[in-house]
Amino acid sequence: MAYRPLDETTVIDYIISRPSMKQVFAGFDALSVNEVGDGNLNLVFIVQNDAAPAESVVLKQALPYLRVAGDSWPLTRERMRYETQALLKHNELAPGLAPTVYDWDDEMSIVIMENLAEHEIMRKGLVARNRYPHFADHISTFLVNSLFFTSDLYLTGPEKKLLAAKFVNEQLRKLQEDFVYTNPYMESPENNWNPLVDAEVQAVRSDAELKMAIAEMKLAYMTHAEALIHADLHTGSIMLNERDTRVIDPEFGFFGPMAYDIGAVLQNLVLNFLSHYGHTPDRAERESYQAYLLDMIGDIWRQFARKFDETWAANNRGELVPAKYWDFPNGQEAFAAYRQRFIHNLLQEVAGHGGVKFLRRMMGIVSVWDLTSIEDLKKRAVAERLAIHIGRRWLMERKSVNSIDDLTGIVREETMGVME
Amino acid sequence: MAYRPLDETTVIDYIISRPSMKQVFAGFDALSVNEVGDGNLNLVFIVQNDAAPAESVVLKQALPYLRVAGDSWPLTRERMRYETQALLKHNELAPGLAPTVYDWDDEMSIVIMENLAEHEIMRKGLVARNRYPHFADHISTFLVNSLFFTSDLYLTGPEKKLLAAKFVNEQLRKLQEDFVYTNPYMESPENNWNPLVDAEVQAVRSDAELKMAIAEMKLAYMTHAEALIHADLHTGSIMLNERDTRVIDPEFGFFGPMAYDIGAVLQNLVLNFLSHYGHTPDRAERESYQAYLLDMIGDIWRQFARKFDETWAANNRGELVPAKYWDFPNGQEAFAAYRQRFIHNLLQEVAGHGGVKFLRRMMGIVSVWDLTSIEDLKKRAVAERLAIHIGRRWLMERKSVNSIDDLTGIVREETMGVME
Repeated sequence: MAYRPLDETTVIDYIISRPSMKQVFAGFDALSVNEVGDGNLNLVFIVQNDAAPAESVVLKQALPYLRVAGDSWPLTRERMRYETQALLKHNELAPGLAPTVYDWDDEMSIVIMENLAEHEIMRKGLVARNRYPHFADHISTFLVNSLFFTSDLYLTGPEKKLLAAKFVNEQLRKLQEDFVYTNPYMESPENNWNPLVDAEVQAVRSDAELKMAIAEMKLAYMTHAEALIHADLHTGSIMLNERDTRVIDPEFGFFGPMAYDIGAVLQNLVLNFLSHYGHTPDRAERESYQAYLLDMIGDIWRQFARKFDETWAANNRGELVPAKYWDFPNGQEAFAAYRQRFIHNLLQEVAGHGGVKFLRRMMGIVSVWDLTSIEDLKKRAVAERLAIHIGRRWLMERKSVNSIDDLTGIVREETMGVME
Repeated sequence: MAYRPLDETTVIDYIISRPSMKQVFAGFDALSVNEVGDGNLNLVFIVQNDAAPAESVVLKQALPYLRVAGDSWPLTRERMRYETQALLKHNELAPGLAPTVYDWDDEMSIVIMENLAEHEIMRKGLVARNRYPHFADHISTFLVNSLFFTSDLYLTGPEKKLLAAKFVNEQLRKLQEDFVYTNPYMESPENNWNPLVDAEVQAVRSDAELKMAIAEMKLAYMTHAEALIHADLHTGSIMLNERDTRVIDPEFGFFGPMAYDIGAVLQNLVLNFLSHYGHTPDRAERESYQAYLLDMIGDIWRQFARKFDETWAANNRGELVPAKYWDFPNGQEAFAAYRQRFIHNLLQEVAGHGGVKFLRRMMGIVSVWDLTSIEDLKKRAVAERLAIHIGRRWLMERKSVNSIDDLTGIVREETMGVME
């Protein structure tokens, strides 16, 4: 079918026209539609059978173009193909941790998937101090499965190259390259920041050592084709509840550095930690939740590191180091040491990419709602200054990071005594 | 035209059928053909106008499949498309340093190019102790132009990704992954080595630290998509004479680490240095030529580093660090320091990849003719042992390498007093 944007009427006809929808809806007579997208990027419809409300889907359609920040970054609806491919891959590798895909249509730039009616966006839940007892387990499994099984540690050389060739994604990659690693640190019209931290922002922009370090991380981001990364894995791309976790919106997916995704998760949790200087005035309540978040960060990394190592040891069919390569006296110990060295390097890269992402959220085009929802600019500035200091230290001290405690330790040191 | 392999008769009809050939040949009545390929990999015909012998071309055609080392590594004739694309790119970026391409035909897996009748294969010339006064200048220009202008330092993000997507080359990449970074260091039927260095070979295969270092370089080789590299730039892929240098056979080309190409050139020159313990019994003559080769290595790197830096400073239109990013007090000094840091890292990676390539030539599927042409196995073993020691040190000491003199210094130290 030739591309045309759907509306609240035509979406019903479209749903009825797809054979796959017979598996979801017992009947099509009582379908209702709710358009919930923001209208800039994509159309997002929730379609529900009012005769059996548990039967519902999300239909997402890319608009023919997207203009971010004026006219400078035009995007085609190719991005929906990347999102669909990545969603299918995530469903295959981490079942239950991404929304189930029911159907897709490349011509129409449409994907139809599970409606996560009982889940909340994690960013909102964290601001409300909700607790998620399974999140560390779930997200570490998602990260291990989506990263390990798309890397050279598992795939053969040709499998990896042919899969990577399906994720060229040159337009959305440019957005991240510009908005994470470049524009925030120089004059660019779309940047915005709290005027109360202007001195810190200007200091970042003219700090030669820091700028060189950011450029080094950018080079790694642009060139290290390690695995299929989500590439936008902040807490706004995670929907969850007490039992269940789903990673959504992987349209930025491409073959990049594993550490970028891990760093995004950990760094967003620290930003939420900082936001409670604004959101949670009660000291005991704040400190309790902040301690919970720091524990969660440690827990996510430790579970990730353990599962990654175990998964690698148990599934070493990839090109990088075939089992036979370690077939010599003490070879198994060498393989184990090699895995640990790999994971250790990964943590240092997490510190680097995560560090940059702190900075970009404070002075680039998009902040995080955790902070922008603090109405008192002075309180917000307290959190933002800390974010800049912590980000700088994660980045600049990355090569001496030895354990996750070094990263949470920097958070503890920088926030010690703040608003006691 | 549907694919069919040409022979000495049909190649003439084919040449006559191509309009492009009217630019090369004044007439087609006196064409003669000489098949010069080895018959395994490709057909290679030299077609000459006997009425005007200066008029000649090389026509290269891929056979429908290639089997290297028995049945294990089947390849399709796709490789001719990669070779053609890379040759065209090299002609565009480094004119005069690759054979001119006159015509190509993807259906027939054919490329027609300049016949380099007055050039010799560098490997043979080096064994004969020939000198090439312009080689360091030429090859450093080839490396700078082919690497810099296909990297994120010059191309925009989308340009780079779209160009890289044309060089998936998953089959030939697997060959290099296996034969350079894996199989030589474990039991594999195609490996072969001089029995007199068996102890050294077995020591490499069971050296845990060394194996971990090789696996680290392999990961970099597989994942670091920095620039369009030649990926087989040994001295058998260079044809030259006293005035002129051409880089041939880029069918392995893909987006990989810049250091791999640079390391290949430098490391092959060291192997040739070592081969003269067999080829040049006269001590004064040998030492003079060996000194010449070490000077050449230093010269190539220093010219490369200078030209790379100057080219980057003068052509900073890429995505990695736009000029505006350095627009702050002392920003130009920071940009210069960043370039130097990049080039310094590159040298350390040259040591790593070059080091591995020493080892693979001593115990993998393909040695180098410089060494295999030494008939006396004992003399050959002298050179091979040194190659293993030097390769090991380049690799294991790579992170403390600060200048090219450190790498040539290792050659000097390891060869001091040998056969005086």
